[in-house]
Amino acid sequence: MSDAIVESAAVTAVDRETGASRFVRACLRQPVDRTPVWFLRQAGRYMPEYMAVRKHHSLLEICRTPEIAAEVTITAAERLDVDAAIIFADLLLPFTPMGLDFEFVAGEGPVVHTPVRTLEHVKTLRTDRVEELQYVARAIEKVATHFSAPRADGDTLGIIGFCGAPWTLAGYMIEGGKQGGGDRNYIETKKMMYSDGPAWSLLMEKIVTVLVAYAQQQVEAGADVIQIFDSWVGKLSVRDYRQYCLGWTTELVQRIKALGVPVIYFGVETASLLPAMSETGADVIGLDWRTPLESGWKAVGAGCAVQGNLDPIALFAQEDVLKQQVSEILEAAAGRPGHIFNLGHGIVPGTPVENVIHVVELVRELSAR
Amino acid sequence: MSDAIVESAAVTAVDRETGASRFVRACLRQPVDRTPVWFLRQAGRYMPEYMAVRKHHSLLEICRTPEIAAEVTITAAERLDVDAAIIFADLLLPFTPMGLDFEFVAGEGPVVHTPVRTLEHVKTLRTDRVEELQYVARAIEKVATHFSAPRADGDTLGIIGFCGAPWTLAGYMIEGGKQGGGDRNYIETKKMMYSDGPAWSLLMEKIVTVLVAYAQQQVEAGADVIQIFDSWVGKLSVRDYRQYCLGWTTELVQRIKALGVPVIYFGVETASLLPAMSETGADVIGLDWRTPLESGWKAVGAGCAVQGNLDPIALFAQEDVLKQQVSEILEAAAGRPGHIFNLGHGIVPGTPVENVIHVVELVRELSAR
Repeated sequence: MSDAIVESAAVTAVDRETGASRFVRACLRQPVDRTPVWFLRQAGRYMPEYMAVRKHHSLLEICRTPEIAAEVTITAAERLDVDAAIIFADLLLPFTPMGLDFEFVAGEGPVVHTPVRTLEHVKTLRTDRVEELQYVARAIEKVATHFSAPRADGDTLGIIGFCGAPWTLAGYMIEGGKQGGGDRNYIETKKMMYSDGPAWSLLMEKIVTVLVAYAQQQVEAGADVIQIFDSWVGKLSVRDYRQYCLGWTTELVQRIKALGVPVIYFGVETASLLPAMSETGADVIGLDWRTPLESGWKAVGAGCAVQGNLDPIALFAQEDVLKQQVSEILEAAAGRPGHIFNLGHGIVPGTPVENVIHVVELVRELSAR
Repeated sequence: MSDAIVESAAVTAVDRETGASRFVRACLRQPVDRTPVWFLRQAGRYMPEYMAVRKHHSLLEICRTPEIAAEVTITAAERLDVDAAIIFADLLLPFTPMGLDFEFVAGEGPVVHTPVRTLEHVKTLRTDRVEELQYVARAIEKVATHFSAPRADGDTLGIIGFCGAPWTLAGYMIEGGKQGGGDRNYIETKKMMYSDGPAWSLLMEKIVTVLVAYAQQQVEAGADVIQIFDSWVGKLSVRDYRQYCLGWTTELVQRIKALGVPVIYFGVETASLLPAMSETGADVIGLDWRTPLESGWKAVGAGCAVQGNLDPIALFAQEDVLKQQVSEILEAAAGRPGHIFNLGHGIVPGTPVENVIHVVELVRELSAR
């Protein structure tokens, strides 16, 4: 896809916005009045409001009930006063219409009961039932409606939809989770990748097909931006990522961009992968906290925006340390268009909410142009 | 420490060797007839001979019984026909003479029953009982004696002693393991690091004191090289590593080098940390599999040797994939002095032993000068 086409697709997304939000403008490396800020996993277990909802509903109930998913999304964004709201959902939701049962087991995370290990199993996975995921789009509609009016500062909130990436979803499918015999070393996933080309290719193709349709639902419902989470991409060597995953991920990124929205592509442990990740053509690359923002931005190239990258555990530090770390990231970005402030990974349980709010204030104060 | 002093300390280690082994020569970036090879966790659960011993002895019994630790070490090195034997031991052994009880809990890993969280607790940690660790030195003596004669190819096997690094050992002490309330996000460790300077400094100082004495025992017993495992260093941002850990790690590296042996410094998820890690003055930096060998070597600098870095999960792949990956690493090293072939992390349970042996054969065949 040529640069010209990429630009025109991006402009469509902006035009649709009332006044083009600060967040979307930053995704497109356009000048902004100050650095936009939001947090990975901003609606999560660290927040009492979220835990109150979780008392009465399972994680999947929240995801599958548009009213509750929207409420959780909106509450977190308003409590923190951030510049973007990411829809509350789970990476594994598309497994159900693909015909893969899973559940969340306390202390174990997601468990896929019949992990995908053979070409025969891959062949049975469905790609024609993505309509069943429309509950996520309905939740996005509610969030977009709620935030349609400009805020006090005249800016509108960005609405982020999201999905997984081919490698990461394949990893969950093939490993099956801890209880499904799976392994954090991704032995079964890499075995299929190395040794069963037909199964791997078909699985990648099916995942991309489903994710594009799913992203399209989210964009049609009002998502301004789609973030692709490649949570476990950091388990791959650069050569393996390039040989077995980059092509599929590029196809996913390009087909989502063609829907008219900027794409953020995020993973952790990615320092060595960043140049390859930016070859997907994603508008924004999320940096984890291990990579200094300056060298990370250099690695993805000046033609790309970056998102990040405070260590989430710095949110446990006292005021002076926290302020120092936030300042250093903003100084490294040096006000260049195309920086979105975020953490380098999700907020962890136990994080003091007041420190998260304080970071929003710090970014607002320190980044004003 | 000036380069001149570093060189002279290193030469002492070589002179002590009968003929200066291929492995030690590579650590010092001296020319070798072929690339030396050994494997992280080469004596481990993937190997039936090891499992047979484990049936009758706990992990700590093996570590603390010089005859058994030596047997396990020797068996693995001979079975694989590698160029170096690393003593079978555990990073946490020094905790006992420091006054910290721990145990290995099945499925949980190491558990420290009373995690270190306060300056008062740090003050109680002992540094004067390192003599109690002499069982490791006794095991090294046995291994060194066993391998004192040259092998069929005229080379002698390298004997590797090892210890943890300040950050990694502090992490185990402060988190306490999963059952001790600890956390893979290192929340408690970073809280002390950020917020309690006196406790952090005293803890680092005590750990370095103990590790230097422990390494000295190992060198006196016949270790040719000491490897420092900074297993969890990859959880740190570069700025935090530089501010809170680099000084202490440098002190450890320099004091071990002053004992007259080369030092290998290894961690995972280190792509961004490599330049800082090489500032410690370590002779060799271990690269994990995420960092391509060429860019990793560039990051640590030409004045440093490198060890690595095959993805351990590639050992599950079929012949052609495995050969391709081994070749690529050797081609990236391009026969430059100072490459030691290894994995980018430890061998995992379930790895086919014959594939590990095959890699040794491949390295031997493909790297002959």
